[in-house]
Amino acid sequence: MAKDIEVGGEYTAKDYQDPPPAPLIDAEELTQWSFYRAIIAEFVATLLFLYITVCTVIGYKSQTDPIKNSDACGGVGILGIAWAFGGMIFVLVYCTAGISGGHINPAVTFGLFLARKVSLVRAVMYMLAQCLGAICGCGLVKAFQKAYYVKYGGGANSLSDGYSTGTGLAAEIIGTFVLVYTVFSATDPKRNARDSHVPVLAPLPIGFAVFMVHLATIPITGTGINPARSFGAAVIYGKDKPWNDQWIFWVGPFIGAAIAAFYHQFILRASAKGLGSFRSNA
Amino acid sequence: MAKDIEVGGEYTAKDYQDPPPAPLIDAEELTQWSFYRAIIAEFVATLLFLYITVCTVIGYKSQTDPIKNSDACGGVGILGIAWAFGGMIFVLVYCTAGISGGHINPAVTFGLFLARKVSLVRAVMYMLAQCLGAICGCGLVKAFQKAYYVKYGGGANSLSDGYSTGTGLAAEIIGTFVLVYTVFSATDPKRNARDSHVPVLAPLPIGFAVFMVHLATIPITGTGINPARSFGAAVIYGKDKPWNDQWIFWVGPFIGAAIAAFYHQFILRASAKGLGSFRSNA
Amino acid sequence: MAKDIEVGGEYTAKDYQDPPPAPLIDAEELTQWSFYRAIIAEFVATLLFLYITVCTVIGYKSQTDPIKNSDACGGVGILGIAWAFGGMIFVLVYCTAGISGGHINPAVTFGLFLARKVSLVRAVMYMLAQCLGAICGCGLVKAFQKAYYVKYGGGANSLSDGYSTGTGLAAEIIGTFVLVYTVFSATDPKRNARDSHVPVLAPLPIGFAVFMVHLATIPITGTGINPARSFGAAVIYGKDKPWNDQWIFWVGPFIGAAIAAFYHQFILRASAKGLGSFRSNA
Amino acid sequence: MAKDIEVGGEYTAKDYQDPPPAPLIDAEELTQWSFYRAIIAEFVATLLFLYITVCTVIGYKSQTDPIKNSDACGGVGILGIAWAFGGMIFVLVYCTAGISGGHINPAVTFGLFLARKVSLVRAVMYMLAQCLGAICGCGLVKAFQKAYYVKYGGGANSLSDGYSTGTGLAAEIIGTFVLVYTVFSATDPKRNARDSHVPVLAPLPIGFAVFMVHLATIPITGTGINPARSFGAAVIYGKDKPWNDQWIFWVGPFIGAAIAAFYHQFILRASAKGLGSFRSNA
Repeated sequence: MAKDIEVGGEYTAKDYQDPPPAPLIDAEELTQWSFYRAIIAEFVATLLFLYITVCTVIGYKSQTDPIKNSDACGGVGILGIAWAFGGMIFVLVYCTAGISGGHINPAVTFGLFLARKVSLVRAVMYMLAQCLGAICGCGLVKAFQKAYYVKYGGGANSLSDGYSTGTGLAAEIIGTFVLVYTVFSATDPKRNARDSHVPVLAPLPIGFAVFMVHLATIPITGTGINPARSFGAAVIYGKDKPWNDQWIFWVGPFIGAAIAAFYHQFILRASAKGLGSFRSNA
Repeated sequence: MAKDIEVGGEYTAKDYQDPPPAPLIDAEELTQWSFYRAIIAEFVATLLFLYITVCTVIGYKSQTDPIKNSDACGGVGILGIAWAFGGMIFVLVYCTAGISGGHINPAVTFGLFLARKVSLVRAVMYMLAQCLGAICGCGLVKAFQKAYYVKYGGGANSLSDGYSTGTGLAAEIIGTFVLVYTVFSATDPKRNARDSHVPVLAPLPIGFAVFMVHLATIPITGTGINPARSFGAAVIYGKDKPWNDQWIFWVGPFIGAAIAAFYHQFILRASAKGLGSFRSNA
Repeated sequence: MAKDIEVGGEYTAKDYQDPPPAPLIDAEELTQWSFYRAIIAEFVATLLFLYITVCTVIGYKSQTDPIKNSDACGGVGILGIAWAFGGMIFVLVYCTAGISGGHINPAVTFGLFLARKVSLVRAVMYMLAQCLGAICGCGLVKAFQKAYYVKYGGGANSLSDGYSTGTGLAAEIIGTFVLVYTVFSATDPKRNARDSHVPVLAPLPIGFAVFMVHLATIPITGTGINPARSFGAAVIYGKDKPWNDQWIFWVGPFIGAAIAAFYHQFILRASAKGLGSFRSNA
Repeated sequence: MAKDIEVGGEYTAKDYQDPPPAPLIDAEELTQWSFYRAIIAEFVATLLFLYITVCTVIGYKSQTDPIKNSDACGGVGILGIAWAFGGMIFVLVYCTAGISGGHINPAVTFGLFLARKVSLVRAVMYMLAQCLGAICGCGLVKAFQKAYYVKYGGGANSLSDGYSTGTGLAAEIIGTFVLVYTVFSATDPKRNARDSHVPVLAPLPIGFAVFMVHLATIPITGTGINPARSFGAAVIYGKDKPWNDQWIFWVGPFIGAAIAAFYHQFILRASAKGLGSFRSNA
């Protein structure tokens, strides 16, 4: 940072400070309780996220089943499902932001890792905790209502009939881009220092981004944009279709997150520091 | 607190201060008008909560009754009912947070008591006020529209057909965990000092947590997660089914609140002070 | 205020300051442009409020008309109508709070007048501007789509079949109480000084209070809780039924607002200053 | 500004500062990377806005198509579509406010240009970027799901049957007035200095204004209030009807934005500085 100030005179009056890029492996964080606490918080948050949202999906499909129930309007609707996903992300980001950063999503973790905001070790541990949490969350839903869970598709993501693989992949890429771009905007130290709405509202637009993407892409892929969510549901549901399409829900979100990281670091912040620091550090 | 500063050098620069654990019986608070005012505020808030939400439930069921009305989609939907519960909690927590802390729910009061944030006397008085308020709120709905109230189930909680007692209990435990975990996150003095979104948004994620849990568990139990709400509706509705299932809506929420208190105090705050202080004080 | 400090030693460290009660007639405010600007802002805001909400009601009824359209789920639903009323109040209170205080409702103006927060002259002028704005807003909807406006009831409030006058009156009283109680909580200088969420979120819970009351009471009265809204729609619609029930939508909200003013000033603030100051000043 | 202080003694203690009117052509901004970055941000934001919202519209119409699907209530509903438009504006204004001001709409840019808050060059470049972004966003939807896109109307705006041209134009004028009036209220430096909710919430009421206007006018015109949105959809859809009505979606929003600029600058701010400065500068 000191070099910045020397080189460019316009930087001297900066009212914010970019934290230095996170190292790939940070031995010190492994010795701190706050590191393990963050991993536990990610696990619990992803578990709650999948439990609430898959419950909502199963309950909706059960209530609008024409065989069981003549009332086709009885459930919360696809709008209610989209709210469940977006609203839970809002609540959980609010609750965990101060503990773990509130990722709850391997694609978000991957994007922040690319921008060097978390270490490699932390990123890998978060992703493991998220996937494990998602499996447990779906497992709880199945344990409580096994018949409905299997009958109504287990909340698993797969490509809908009539859409090509390319369309599904593109939907996941752009959807994840919207989410990760919002996360970068919400956590940008430069903007935090200047716009008072940025740090205060932060969890709300992140939740809304998830809500919006679900409105748009539930008809196409059921909306993944979160590999842990797709993976957990596939593991517990255990049918072929979600496994065959599973790669879409990992490749798409990771590409989308990478584009968002690139867009934010190179275009909006116009700094080669973020991604470029890989070269010098690695 | 003084001991903390001596023992660990890293604590000296703490930018927040944990309030000391509330005593079990605080004789002084009994002499203050603010104590009685808080009890009145809890009573009025729970009354309004039940009045608005049960009105919404009865109105929805009346408008979508196929005998009265051929328009099966005429009402606000289950999504509207979930909004009514979550939105009222947002409004009422906003209004009463500065007066009583904005509990409006015996499970929340129980969780905060376990974490030693309210005294035993205050907790008991709050719960009585909440139950009385809930009875009065449901009573108003019944007084105004008796025929509809009885015909459409009085907004009372009971286990839906096809779900086991264990499922219902688990749904209440996890649902209340989500709510009380959010309350703890929103009122944590450590996080208030560091994340600017925490104190400012506080009532909004609490309301959203209630909204989310209703989306997920209305098909299972009608969603209690608030013993006063379930109790008041059962008292005024007066049928057997809600009374037989009533224990689920007390045991579930209290277990969920206890787990949330444990999770927040021992895992996230990693302090034995919260719950542990029971031993030394009691 | 100086007297307060002399009398009660506990007041010396007050971190907030209650403004003195507004005089009944404030000759000075009549000479200021900001007074007339506030009246214009109330007029425009109430006009926009009625225009957007009545458009939503007419559009919904037109799209779900079984004669025109077989798709009974085509419109925004009663949930959408409730959002229109609540959301517009949020937007308009946000926009006009700094200009006129953002009343947009004679019942709110009446409540704040009782608490001596606005002068009598200002209160009367605001109410006139609000009623005139509401008439113009409904007039615009009728001018643009006359056939639909008359066919689908013009958004006018009247008691639904099957509900007694007493029920309608009670629904309006409690509904307005919820709204005006929220307004008092949001504008309390004591709470503003202590809870950071109070001044920042203010317009949002006020909008949500309106949203909630609509969810609950649309089936009963169509939800007034705003005499200008009921009056404007009745004037433009011009049928007997809304005129016969019109008194409910003035008496109910004014009683509700008076109870909220009493509750806030005497119970929650425990001060005889607010309402009591009438005696000494009048 | 200096003259102000000399002329009126009441201005000396101003706690805010009006920025000087933007020049028509600002040669310096053309040399700065932040100018081009802002144009890129407007392009990307408008692209994402159209992609998500048109996807939602197409997906809704596909899911409720009675030929394909017997479940007429299967989609997100018109309420969901209104949320998609309003919610995306909230998210995108939040994300781009600090980069480009977050216009995402030529009518907003036009209104702010009239109030001399952006230079002519910037306004023209923003509008070009917005139109190009809208075309690309709609193009992506068509590329991914061509059959559905064409079959379900491509999200293009046109006057609904049974409404006159005058009604459509008026709906666009008033709808855009609501939006641009909210934008002016949210960015007013005088109000920012006095009401703490104004800068913090800013993107939320702007998004809600869009949401509200969609609830009210989707049945009339499909709701434009954003010429780039109407233009992009017309270009990609390519049928006659949207092109014939296209002028409504440019003339209406520009008139609405001009009235909002006039109302804010001359009535609410009571300053002849805003618009009047055209005379002296041009």
